[in-house]
Amino acid sequence: MADQYAHPGEDKRPDDIPAIRWEEPPEGPVVVLLDQTRLPAEEVELVCTDASTLVEAIRSLAVRGAPLLGIAGAYGVALAAARNFDVDEAASALESARPTAVNLALGVHRARDAYRAALADGGPEQAALAALTAARQLHREDAEASTRMAAHGLTLLDELLPGGGHRVLTHCNTGALVSGGEGTAFAVALAAHRVGRLRRLWVDETRPLLQGARLTAYEAARNGMAYTLLTDNAAGSLFAAGEVDAVLIGADRIAADGSVANKVGSYPLAVLARYHHVPFVVVAPVTTIDLATPDGAAVEVEQRPGHEVTELAAPHAPAPGPGGGLAVAPLGTQAYNPAFDVTPPELITAIVTEEGVLSPVTGAGLAELCVRSRSRAGEGVAGG
Amino acid sequence: MADQYAHPGEDKRPDDIPAIRWEEPPEGPVVVLLDQTRLPAEEVELVCTDASTLVEAIRSLAVRGAPLLGIAGAYGVALAAARNFDVDEAASALESARPTAVNLALGVHRARDAYRAALADGGPEQAALAALTAARQLHREDAEASTRMAAHGLTLLDELLPGGGHRVLTHCNTGALVSGGEGTAFAVALAAHRVGRLRRLWVDETRPLLQGARLTAYEAARNGMAYTLLTDNAAGSLFAAGEVDAVLIGADRIAADGSVANKVGSYPLAVLARYHHVPFVVVAPVTTIDLATPDGAAVEVEQRPGHEVTELAAPHAPAPGPGGGLAVAPLGTQAYNPAFDVTPPELITAIVTEEGVLSPVTGAGLAELCVRSRSRAGEGVAGG
Repeated sequence: MADQYAHPGEDKRPDDIPAIRWEEPPEGPVVVLLDQTRLPAEEVELVCTDASTLVEAIRSLAVRGAPLLGIAGAYGVALAAARNFDVDEAASALESARPTAVNLALGVHRARDAYRAALADGGPEQAALAALTAARQLHREDAEASTRMAAHGLTLLDELLPGGGHRVLTHCNTGALVSGGEGTAFAVALAAHRVGRLRRLWVDETRPLLQGARLTAYEAARNGMAYTLLTDNAAGSLFAAGEVDAVLIGADRIAADGSVANKVGSYPLAVLARYHHVPFVVVAPVTTIDLATPDGAAVEVEQRPGHEVTELAAPHAPAPGPGGGLAVAPLGTQAYNPAFDVTPPELITAIVTEEGVLSPVTGAGLAELCVRSRSRAGEGVAGG
Repeated sequence: MADQYAHPGEDKRPDDIPAIRWEEPPEGPVVVLLDQTRLPAEEVELVCTDASTLVEAIRSLAVRGAPLLGIAGAYGVALAAARNFDVDEAASALESARPTAVNLALGVHRARDAYRAALADGGPEQAALAALTAARQLHREDAEASTRMAAHGLTLLDELLPGGGHRVLTHCNTGALVSGGEGTAFAVALAAHRVGRLRRLWVDETRPLLQGARLTAYEAARNGMAYTLLTDNAAGSLFAAGEVDAVLIGADRIAADGSVANKVGSYPLAVLARYHHVPFVVVAPVTTIDLATPDGAAVEVEQRPGHEVTELAAPHAPAPGPGGGLAVAPLGTQAYNPAFDVTPPELITAIVTEEGVLSPVTGAGLAELCVRSRSRAGEGVAGG
């Protein structure tokens, strides 16, 4: 079914427009997304009535960010189940919508496994409810994980940089728009801001899709943070001038050896941070750790269409170029456009998770975090 | 006077559209520029009938690139003289149009000094002719310098990377569009291409103004080179994958200690190159060496308007934002937008000039290059 657009009231505050929500209007259940491709110019919601609309929203980056993709994937399975579509087919389409983000597949599997287990025990209706319950549980857990990552991250920042007045550089978007809560790396900067210890948030614009300019600047402005936008290649001058105290980024997948796949441009920042003796900190939930991926070389890096580089895309502009944007390079120009790059563990000062901080970054330490997370989840199930 | 536009014939080859030329139509002398802000979409010439139009063209980057700015500055003085404007006023406006590029001031001074000397000896007409002769001489010398830099650079590449098949990464635009000849760093890559030893030219798009995407890709395509465009922050992945054999960039100013001011984004490439043991080579004429600037800290770095970062500018699109572009960041977003950054000599493998190659880069070596250049110029004057 085609997607529909809803305009939320303009007087609402930012936290009134969640990045994702499940709704059950009389016409049947839907997954409602804040369309991130249209920010900051417009706050428009995208209403998904089936999994294929959601797959398209994931591919076009209307919904994006590692933790949020997991939640979206789980709701997508719940939606297919609630509307009596083929759940296995929907799950398969959803998990392959973007290959690098491990959380997407995890979220999909979690709702699908709940569905399958309940289907074996009862009927399809009960199974659909089980899938939805699993999605809601993941959503809630992610919000809690955000809160805990922010607290751990702030403690780490204060240890690394005693005295406050932190000048933090961040890349891409890692705030409330990527999460059921306040995000990952951005949530740490926001926590520092709330206690008066953030002096400046340096925001990389993050080419080619400008998630830093469009989304992080939007979140920083709405939260009243002191922020400055820069082109990705201007970060070097900031390091050289001693204007960066720490780099905080998120992660799309953390391999078993501690290699971090994240938005392209993260690795050059890690190299700059090392050269300038500046801490380089990754903030991500434990679900981002993928012990099945042994190392950085084993990470599949998504290659995105060249027109994201060869054309400037304006939201809802007329579509002169093949990708719908305005050509900035000669016709026929070939582009290299990886969505992610991989930073090896030796360049990472610390990984902050909801289970605590890992520093130095080692495979053994990561494995232990995963065990701790599973045992806490087990306790939670036993207790609740 | 207002600028006028001329459309050159569409069947001409690239070298038939020079970046700059002096013409003397019946209405009076003019400086004709290829408007680089409209490439690659349109090849449009901008006709300047006075120095202030040329100043505006320099500020808006319709004409840009260190060596070409020197030529433009010299022709600007000649134009003011030929049209009986105040030459000192014009010279002053021209040389301050962009503060970092040392060649601009040098070119202006050369024509102005020739004008003044001739004015002392004869009348204004003779002085105007002297200014034009000086500008033409600079133009010719720059073309010759390009040829010699390309030859020296190719020899260096072959020494650094025996066996050919060079994969060269470049930043910004350093070809025929910045020079009276074939350019600086780009001219070296072009020379390698012509002898079949260039395997790939990696072209950084070069935010915020996309000179790589718009201009270098345009020059590479027209010369039939194998090139690939990338966002500036994707260069890290290429280094990590071992896909870059050498970095070749230009320079806007070289301080006496060998620090190189060049387009923002050069310094991060130098750090990446060092981390990956890849040669980082600067190609620039001796005129770019400024012995009056002692070191990198003394280089004045031009800060450009924030809207270059907060808005996407489409050539000749309607103008919704304050800077005439489409807003990509929230209204009121502050941007850090330095035009240049500074790379210290210890990160530079070699500086290639028309007088030869300097490696390692030392202050003494630079001073010697300048002496060699002056003595050759002296011989030239003595002989001619």
